Amino acid sequence: MDTHFFDRATALTADGAGRWQGRTDAAYANMVGPYGGITAATALQAICQHPDRLGDPVSLTVNFCAALTDGAFDVSARAVRTNRSTQHWVIEIQQGGETVLTATALTAVRRETWGSQDEPAPRVLSPNAIGKPNMAAPVEWVKRYDIRMVEGAIPRVWDGTGEHSRTTLWVRDEPPRALDFPSLAALCDVFFPRVWLRRATRVPAGTVSMTVYFHVGTAELAAVGEGWLLGQAQASVMRNGYFDQRGQLWSQAGALLATTHQVVYYKE
Amino acid sequence: MDTHFFDRATALTADGAGRWQGRTDAAYANMVGPYGGITAATALQAICQHPDRLGDPVSLTVNFCAALTDGAFDVSARAVRTNRSTQHWVIEIQQGGETVLTATALTAVRRETWGSQDEPAPRVLSPNAIGKPNMAAPVEWVKRYDIRMVEGAIPRVWDGTGEHSRTTLWVRDEPPRALDFPSLAALCDVFFPRVWLRRATRVPAGTVSMTVYFHVGTAELAAVGEGWLLGQAQASVMRNGYFDQRGQLWSQAGALLATTHQVVYYKE
Repeated sequence: MDTHFFDRATALTADGAGRWQGRTDAAYANMVGPYGGITAATALQAICQHPDRLGDPVSLTVNFCAALTDGAFDVSARAVRTNRSTQHWVIEIQQGGETVLTATALTAVRRETWGSQDEPAPRVLSPNAIGKPNMAAPVEWVKRYDIRMVEGAIPRVWDGTGEHSRTTLWVRDEPPRALDFPSLAALCDVFFPRVWLRRATRVPAGTVSMTVYFHVGTAELAAVGEGWLLGQAQASVMRNGYFDQRGQLWSQAGALLATTHQVVYYKE
Repeated sequence: MDTHFFDRATALTADGAGRWQGRTDAAYANMVGPYGGITAATALQAICQHPDRLGDPVSLTVNFCAALTDGAFDVSARAVRTNRSTQHWVIEIQQGGETVLTATALTAVRRETWGSQDEPAPRVLSPNAIGKPNMAAPVEWVKRYDIRMVEGAIPRVWDGTGEHSRTTLWVRDEPPRALDFPSLAALCDVFFPRVWLRRATRVPAGTVSMTVYFHVGTAELAAVGEGWLLGQAQASVMRNGYFDQRGQLWSQAGALLATTHQVVYYKE
């Protein structure tokens, strides 16, 4: 079987203790540099491959310091604190000796406890009922996902008439691929800039910081497998060049797998 | 005039380029170590005092790696990338050579743009109508704030009957103090653990990572001055030892000043 696009794009070659080399992949090209989600996934990949890792990812924050240029990059991941059941990480990606991404993460051995999910998945039509997307992918990375819009699609007409910033969509890797922590992190960045929807105006925009909280462990991810995820994202406020985005990703069975937040730069 | 508790607790003494020394303050003591909000504020303080800083804080993520012990600590803040109008920071706090906190932050020169606030402040009774709190502060740091509960107070009876995790409250420093970025960061951590409310059961809990997005600049903070903030926080999901919390802080005039997120450890 051929290597999946996702595995090829996030592949890392060990380059000493806690150091790896990666390479941008044209399959995930964005307007400038690669899709932020694939870079975030690569940062998490370094931790997942680290021989000293304790437990599963619980939180990940990535800061996009500069657009990556096409080609090789260096990843370093360092466990700065290891407790009995938790571990704190600092990650950095560099190109030509310059920092292009910083990240911090928490991994933990999770134990079974009392629990409650108070944010239910919205009730929407199934992915099959919505059917295949009928629009051209505006950039290459969009072809790496099967996205079925439920509400809040990219405006067809840029006429400044937007009223809200909420998008609800079904999504999975294209072709389908069994879900893991790096691919879930990448999926958290799948929503196009909220400001485009809110304003029905296309302005330059780019994520500067993204946080993902993982609410499930390896077994629950395995249960999702190649299944669909239901995602929802919206902004609270857009002001003087930056807006926030909060998002949720549920399994088709309704389990809240991840909550995610971004702050996004926009122009004008 | 005496130094305000907050300024005393977040005071830093320069200790070389990008290095400072601070000291925990009994006025902000929590059950174990200091209030997380004051430690987050101290990390941000280092950036605000850094001679190379460009612009105002836009995002801050702090990871609480271990409880601070009472006494001195070392803070380092490094600008890892400076662009034309944005700057990315990595911050670390150590005690005895061990990392107790890591943080990343973005500062930026913000320009006036189109904007929209789509998350209005909830309509609630005024702080004066609610009146002074009539409960004893369970830990010292709570005395540093005037908190007027609108809904979702700490349960009076721990009988396992909780139904939701939402708290709405008015808050300001006690005594009042003009709002700035560090004090706004500290205020983002003012909500008690959501799991206590949701379960009406008191279990050990502690924030492991907190993110703050700042939606206003220096001028808008100055306009709030010593005024009240309206805060709201709730969880989406609690599962296997960790829950999330999302929160908002508005000025009394209704401006969304900050949105904030946490992932919190809980036992049992």
